[in-house]
Amino acid sequence: MAPTSLSLFQQRVEQQLQQALATTVPTNFLLHDAMAYSLLLGGKRVRPFLVYSLGQMLGAKLSDLDAPAVAIEAIHSYSLIHDDLPAMDNDDLRRGKPTCHKAYSEATAILAGDALQAFAFELLSSHDYQQVCPRRQVLMVKTLAQAAGATGMCAGQAIDLAQTNQKITLEKLELMHRLKTGALIESTVKLAYYASPVEDEQILLDLLKFASALGLAFQVQDDILDIESDTATLGKTQGSDLKANKATYPALLGLAGAKDKAAQLYQEALAALERLPYDTAELARFAHYIIARKF
Amino acid sequence: MAPTSLSLFQQRVEQQLQQALATTVPTNFLLHDAMAYSLLLGGKRVRPFLVYSLGQMLGAKLSDLDAPAVAIEAIHSYSLIHDDLPAMDNDDLRRGKPTCHKAYSEATAILAGDALQAFAFELLSSHDYQQVCPRRQVLMVKTLAQAAGATGMCAGQAIDLAQTNQKITLEKLELMHRLKTGALIESTVKLAYYASPVEDEQILLDLLKFASALGLAFQVQDDILDIESDTATLGKTQGSDLKANKATYPALLGLAGAKDKAAQLYQEALAALERLPYDTAELARFAHYIIARKF
Repeated sequence: MAPTSLSLFQQRVEQQLQQALATTVPTNFLLHDAMAYSLLLGGKRVRPFLVYSLGQMLGAKLSDLDAPAVAIEAIHSYSLIHDDLPAMDNDDLRRGKPTCHKAYSEATAILAGDALQAFAFELLSSHDYQQVCPRRQVLMVKTLAQAAGATGMCAGQAIDLAQTNQKITLEKLELMHRLKTGALIESTVKLAYYASPVEDEQILLDLLKFASALGLAFQVQDDILDIESDTATLGKTQGSDLKANKATYPALLGLAGAKDKAAQLYQEALAALERLPYDTAELARFAHYIIARKF
Repeated sequence: MAPTSLSLFQQRVEQQLQQALATTVPTNFLLHDAMAYSLLLGGKRVRPFLVYSLGQMLGAKLSDLDAPAVAIEAIHSYSLIHDDLPAMDNDDLRRGKPTCHKAYSEATAILAGDALQAFAFELLSSHDYQQVCPRRQVLMVKTLAQAAGATGMCAGQAIDLAQTNQKITLEKLELMHRLKTGALIESTVKLAYYASPVEDEQILLDLLKFASALGLAFQVQDDILDIESDTATLGKTQGSDLKANKATYPALLGLAGAKDKAAQLYQEALAALERLPYDTAELARFAHYIIARKF
C-alpha cells in the first residue's frame, strides 16, 4: 500500500510544477507548450515525493522543498523527452500519449528538453527560500548538476545506448542503473538535506544508503514486472527477455535470483532507515510500495 | 585591431576549459571525448573574454572569473552541438571540422550537449571562489540559467527555427537575435558583476546597455560579412541573401542601412562605456574589433 503522504505530495508537486512554469515561462514563448506538455504528463512523481518526504522528516519547511521538488522533476522530464528521440530510444508513446517529438517536432523536443534543464537550475537559484542559507542553496545546485551530468544521469544513458543488446556483466548493469536513475534518486537525499537545518554527516550517509538501495530496487522490480506482467497480460512466455539477450536482472540472475536481489535491496533500504533518529514509517511504506508495486 | 588582452584571455580560457573538464569528467566516462571535442574546438571565445575583461575592470579576482568564463563557454558549446543536429540546422561542419554528431553519433551529440549544460552549472556551483559570497554565487547560477533557458537562448533558437525562411519584421529579427545570442552575451555582464565586489545598480545597467548593443552589433556585422565576404571569396553577387528572402539586416534595411545600424550600435556601446567610472579602453577596442572584423 502506498504511504498516505504519497497522493498529498503528488498533488502538491502538480500544483507547484504548473505554478513554476507559469511564473518562469510566459505562455506566449514558443517552447512553453512543449515544456508543459511533457512536464505535466503525469507519472508517479517518485523524485518529488522523496524530496518532500525526506525534507519534511529532516525539519525543512515545505515551501523550501517546492523548488528542489520541481527542479528534479524538470530534470527527469527533460531526460525522458531526449531519451524518446529517434536518435535515442525512438519511442512514439510515453504514458499512453504521443512523445514530445511526435506531438510537436524533433527540433522542438530537443529545445524543450534543453530549456527544462535550464528551468531546473533557474528555479533552484531563484526560489524565495525561508530558511535555506545561500551556501546550502549553492550545494543544492551542485548536487543536481552532478546528478544530471556526465558522471551521473547522462553517463548512465550513454552506457545504456552503448550496450546495443549485448549481454553485459551484472557489474556493468548495476553501474548503468546507478548512474541513469540512481544518481537522480540519490540526489533527492542531498536536496532534502540541504533544504533542512540538519548538519550531520552520519544522517546524510544513512539516507544515501537508503536512497541507493531504493533506486536499484526500483530498477530490479521494473525488470521483474517486464516479465511477470507480460506473462499475465500478453501471454508472452515467462523469461522471454532472457532469450532476447536483453540486459536485465532476471536475464543475469534468473527470475528467482532477481526477486532475491530485490528483497535484499529492500532489506538494505529498511536497515538504513532503522539507523536514523527519526520516524521513518512513511519512507519504509514507500520502499515497500516500490517493491510490491505491480505497474 | 584586437585588444591586447584578447589573446591573453583566450589562452587562459583554453587552459581553464581543459582543466575543468579533466577535473569534472574522468576520461573513462563515455561522454568525455565528445564533450572535449566540441568544447576545445576553438573559436573566438567572445563570451569568456567579456567575463574576464569586465570582471577584471570591476575588481574581481581572475581566479574567481574562471568558473563563469568556462561555464558560459560550455553553454555556448552545447548550444552549437544541438543547433547542428539533423533535426535543427543539420550542419556537417563546424569551424572546418565535422560537427559533433558527424564525428560521434547523433545520440552521443545530444547527450554531450546535455552533459555540457549540467557541467556549466556544476562548475559555477563547485568552484572554490576567493571573494565571491554564496549569495552572489546563487545569482550567477540564476543569471546563466535564465540566459540559457526558455526565455533566453532556447527561445531565440525556437523563433529562428519557426521562421522557415519567411520574411520577418525587423522587430522579430531583433528579438530573435536578442534572445538567441544577446541573452548569453548580456549575461557575461552579470556574471562578471557578481564575481566582483561592486554593488552599484547604475554601473550594472550601463554595462548591460554596452553588452546589449555589442551583442546585436555582432549579429548585424555577421549578416554584412555574409554578403561582403561572399562577394570577395565566392564571387556570389552582393545582396544574394536578399533574393533568397533570408531574414537578415541587409535584407530588411539594405546593405547601407545595415552598415548604418552597425555603426549606430557601435556608438551606443561606446556611449554606455563612457558613462562608467573605469578605464574602458580595452572594452572599446573590443567593440571596435567586433564591428571591424572581417571574419
